Amino acid sequence: MHWCRFLDGDEAAYGVVDGDSLRRMTGSPFAGGTAGGEVRPLSEVKLLIPCVPPTFYAAGANYRAHLAWAAQALGGSGQPPPRADIGYRANNGLIAQDEAIVIPRDAGGPVQVEGELVAVIGRTVKGLTRENALDCVLGYTIGNDVSERTWQRGDRTLWRAKNADTFAPMGPWITPGLDPERLEVITRVNGEEASRYRTGDAIYSFVDFLVETTKYVTLYTGDVMWLGCDGATPDITPGDVVEIEIPGIGTLRNPVAGE
Amino acid sequence: MHWCRFLDGDEAAYGVVDGDSLRRMTGSPFAGGTAGGEVRPLSEVKLLIPCVPPTFYAAGANYRAHLAWAAQALGGSGQPPPRADIGYRANNGLIAQDEAIVIPRDAGGPVQVEGELVAVIGRTVKGLTRENALDCVLGYTIGNDVSERTWQRGDRTLWRAKNADTFAPMGPWITPGLDPERLEVITRVNGEEASRYRTGDAIYSFVDFLVETTKYVTLYTGDVMWLGCDGATPDITPGDVVEIEIPGIGTLRNPVAGE
Repeated sequence: MHWCRFLDGDEAAYGVVDGDSLRRMTGSPFAGGTAGGEVRPLSEVKLLIPCVPPTFYAAGANYRAHLAWAAQALGGSGQPPPRADIGYRANNGLIAQDEAIVIPRDAGGPVQVEGELVAVIGRTVKGLTRENALDCVLGYTIGNDVSERTWQRGDRTLWRAKNADTFAPMGPWITPGLDPERLEVITRVNGEEASRYRTGDAIYSFVDFLVETTKYVTLYTGDVMWLGCDGATPDITPGDVVEIEIPGIGTLRNPVAGE
Repeated sequence: MHWCRFLDGDEAAYGVVDGDSLRRMTGSPFAGGTAGGEVRPLSEVKLLIPCVPPTFYAAGANYRAHLAWAAQALGGSGQPPPRADIGYRANNGLIAQDEAIVIPRDAGGPVQVEGELVAVIGRTVKGLTRENALDCVLGYTIGNDVSERTWQRGDRTLWRAKNADTFAPMGPWITPGLDPERLEVITRVNGEEASRYRTGDAIYSFVDFLVETTKYVTLYTGDVMWLGCDGATPDITPGDVVEIEIPGIGTLRNPVAGE
């Protein structure tokens, strides 16, 4: 069972996905909504991003192989930060299942993809403990942290390197009941596997991020936390199709276009 | 004339402020709303943050005296970035007029304030030109970019140094019809002037930021762009009252408390 957000006529609505079909919900999964509508084939609906986050958090530098890669490719230290310290992305970059990643005309490249587990916060919380931290999570979805490496190396911030329009595919839906430390993230470009890693290899766990962040920051219903990536970060070019699969959730799929 | 957002019973509403009084609007200033309700004394309403931004942009490192200060205090290069490159803040930090800035218990300090001009975007735009850039602006408000300097020096990102809860006072309202290059920003702590600078001294103008940002990023209705600060960044401690005044807009006032 998954919760999706989809276009019902002109209106954004939540639905419950079961296999290849969907039923519209009364209300949203954040407010205890349940499936109430008629059964429709999933293939006939336009999926939207599964939520519009009040704040879009992103963990960077949280896997050893990615740190080693970044040290070499981007000039980082290769050292993990001394604590789980979160960063931010911008909502303008978010796109949904099947929408195109558009590479800006003047991108120096390479443009690469980073497949990530994404946690969706289900209620307002602060001061979480290790014991109760995961109780605030509604479920998990998939993110693709598209990155333009020339800009990532040269700019003062990640504003266009990781936040250009269409650079943050997220979806296809939200899945409850998973263990975030025991998932696998597989990236395919044009059907060929290009990267695979396990979330259990993260330097700081998702619980670490929740506990550390909520010492100072209130998380709100619908906030999302992208949890970083490990291993290879495959290149993409216009005409490609990129898929991020997390077994248990599903597959986030986006074509790539030039501006 | 200013547009404010305020609490009308249990409901957030927009109002038109004229002198010491306010009238509730039909709709919002983003959608051509007009003042329609009865006249109320401004002193009797609870002001809210003037909008809830889909994305909260912030320009850093945009004034020479601030860069020189940051080079000395935080170890920066002192050099301006080669182009107007925007950063981000998080909505959890936003508080309204008269709400308390709360300094976290374990802040190493100093905690300082940075008074800033804030632009409020009035409609969805991309690919702005120098000629039409300012047409997308609904108006201007005031921001106080509260900063914990120990965390700003030591952390990988600004997540808690500038985004801890209550660290982003914004208000008191939105004022249309101003020239963003010809404003003065005055900071007072406990009634004593502690900083004063002119927006015309910025390295990159607001138009530079709008044109450069919208090459890659769509700005949406209600997005805010905080425009950086110059000069001294006064210390605050619990018990203080900090005021940021921009003549033409008004005064953003917040007390300071300890956690």
